[in-house]
Amino acid sequence: MQKEERNPILGKQSIAPNDPVYLVESASVVGKKEGEGPLGNLFDLVGEDDMFGCKSWEEAESCLQREALTCAIQKAGWKKEDARFLFAGDLLGQEIATSFGLEQFDRPLFGLYGACSTCGLSLMLASLIIAGGFAEKAACVTSSHFASAEKEFRFPLGYGNQRPLSATWTVTGSGAFLLAREADCGKRPARAAITGMTPGKIVDFGLKDSMNMGACMAPAAASTIGQHLKDFGRRPVDYDKIITGDLGKVGQTVLLDLLEKDGIDISGRHMDCGIEIYDAEEQDTHAGGSGCGCSAVVLSAYILRMLEEGVWKRVLFAPTGALLSKTSFNEGKAVPGICHCLVLESLQQKKTCGSGTDSLQ
Amino acid sequence: MQKEERNPILGKQSIAPNDPVYLVESASVVGKKEGEGPLGNLFDLVGEDDMFGCKSWEEAESCLQREALTCAIQKAGWKKEDARFLFAGDLLGQEIATSFGLEQFDRPLFGLYGACSTCGLSLMLASLIIAGGFAEKAACVTSSHFASAEKEFRFPLGYGNQRPLSATWTVTGSGAFLLAREADCGKRPARAAITGMTPGKIVDFGLKDSMNMGACMAPAAASTIGQHLKDFGRRPVDYDKIITGDLGKVGQTVLLDLLEKDGIDISGRHMDCGIEIYDAEEQDTHAGGSGCGCSAVVLSAYILRMLEEGVWKRVLFAPTGALLSKTSFNEGKAVPGICHCLVLESLQQKKTCGSGTDSLQ
Repeated sequence: MQKEERNPILGKQSIAPNDPVYLVESASVVGKKEGEGPLGNLFDLVGEDDMFGCKSWEEAESCLQREALTCAIQKAGWKKEDARFLFAGDLLGQEIATSFGLEQFDRPLFGLYGACSTCGLSLMLASLIIAGGFAEKAACVTSSHFASAEKEFRFPLGYGNQRPLSATWTVTGSGAFLLAREADCGKRPARAAITGMTPGKIVDFGLKDSMNMGACMAPAAASTIGQHLKDFGRRPVDYDKIITGDLGKVGQTVLLDLLEKDGIDISGRHMDCGIEIYDAEEQDTHAGGSGCGCSAVVLSAYILRMLEEGVWKRVLFAPTGALLSKTSFNEGKAVPGICHCLVLESLQQKKTCGSGTDSLQ
Repeated sequence: MQKEERNPILGKQSIAPNDPVYLVESASVVGKKEGEGPLGNLFDLVGEDDMFGCKSWEEAESCLQREALTCAIQKAGWKKEDARFLFAGDLLGQEIATSFGLEQFDRPLFGLYGACSTCGLSLMLASLIIAGGFAEKAACVTSSHFASAEKEFRFPLGYGNQRPLSATWTVTGSGAFLLAREADCGKRPARAAITGMTPGKIVDFGLKDSMNMGACMAPAAASTIGQHLKDFGRRPVDYDKIITGDLGKVGQTVLLDLLEKDGIDISGRHMDCGIEIYDAEEQDTHAGGSGCGCSAVVLSAYILRMLEEGVWKRVLFAPTGALLSKTSFNEGKAVPGICHCLVLESLQQKKTCGSGTDSLQ
């Protein structure tokens, strides 16, 4: 059916759907520390403690997902049945935060794993399923929890181990996003349009330090962002912001250096969700925030708001993931990275974004 | 663009793409025990031991994925670049078999997690991306390994723990599948067509026994298969086989009972990959085989062959997954299940399958 139409396949690894998909509504739920950070006032729900009334950290993380999706659905005035499919994932082994968090929504689930890039992965696949005509509406949910992640990847908190300055702090939070084919199906106008995407490759520079994941993921971010610009025939100046997920300060330096070597200067417009979410000095979070929840809650609370208000017209959202497990780490393997990126456009000016892909021509 | 056309959205949770997607080629790589089973002669590669020349079981599992995809690509005469995207996953925490197994293919990766249903999940999403016009060709890879799975989910093998008769034996194996929009892009005609799918919900009957995963997953299989038949307006007799992934003998009984209560009798045409892959008595595998690799290698080696030869015209492939981790198990949580199903049709008779969805009307 689309064979005779404009080809949405772009360059080496990108996709530009013929019609945009709308980010109708979203919600963010975070822990106490995130609530005390610079974006604290912007989140929909801030927990009083990080257990969220549950018996274990894993259950607390499931609760975060449940609350985030419930909140997004309420804000949009949807029923849970309106989301035909769920696209979701988390950082825990076998994705138990998702399985136990989203069970009660009783919706078909596409389980995803892209480490801390999972928010981007979920938005990408949900957009494509909607753009392909296989669903009218769908929801995406991702989460992370500081305590469940430390237990899963590093040391039980009770050990009180020291953290090097390159370490990031896993965000306790979950972001939920409602996507649809039509812009006007929430209580307020859609927050933004998704107009293109570049799924990323596994990129491995051989780095082995699980306490410096920013540096491990930066090469993947450089690879996907560089390829995205080539595939779309764009320059960094075509984006108001190029936003990575959780590289932190160390990873940011590596990313800017790597891209500069390829003649791409994004220094004036790079932003990292992990750097934004905490006041690193005041909050002792070292290199910045990380986790699936980091980019998800910053997207929901801050990035979409800036697009909604028309402050930014078009951004590249590029969450990054570190593909390690405690088993691979203990067996001496490197920490490869992956980065998936999406083009998000403001709906403030019809001219720019009415058809979503006008600007791609 | 598709708004004016036939709607591929079917019933409560199904999809029937307007054009079929072709399963162009596939490959299966298994361990020694699987090679000694009833399907032994049908697999493409059988390892001499289960380490596959690697230093750890996890590396061996990565090797399985690499070999399976390499073999499928060679059989089709593709270059690795021909697969625009990879859709892949495994059972290990943070999917390390996939990350370290597929890195060298240098393709954009959609990482998926659906426990032992991941083969179905990957085929579903790859089909939809192709049917939506977002890629011409893609590849799917899934794997499991007996030893890495026992270590991940239950006890280290060295403990020599006893296994109850309800336990299944995780298959050491990987299946790789090449999908395309056009049927004739391999060295031989495409093996089958994917003409419909029903993604599954998380179904939790509260069972907590990780040594009886068949019973934990059977309710999910009953849910998805039942909904599939309703959504497509079909009866069991419309399929030559209805094939679950790894319910084993205990799960099979539960599935048949649950469906019978809903007035659906699939007893004459149910097949379970886990039951087929081993000779349970001779090979001491108790209830049957399990793992992402189980349904994947049986699909590649046996099911596709039967479709190719026209012995079966149309089957429902319904791999099942148990959504547990050792953490959720140790914290006393239940083991919810999920089941994703796909309609696979033979290309032997043009009349039945030329347009793939003719039969859906």
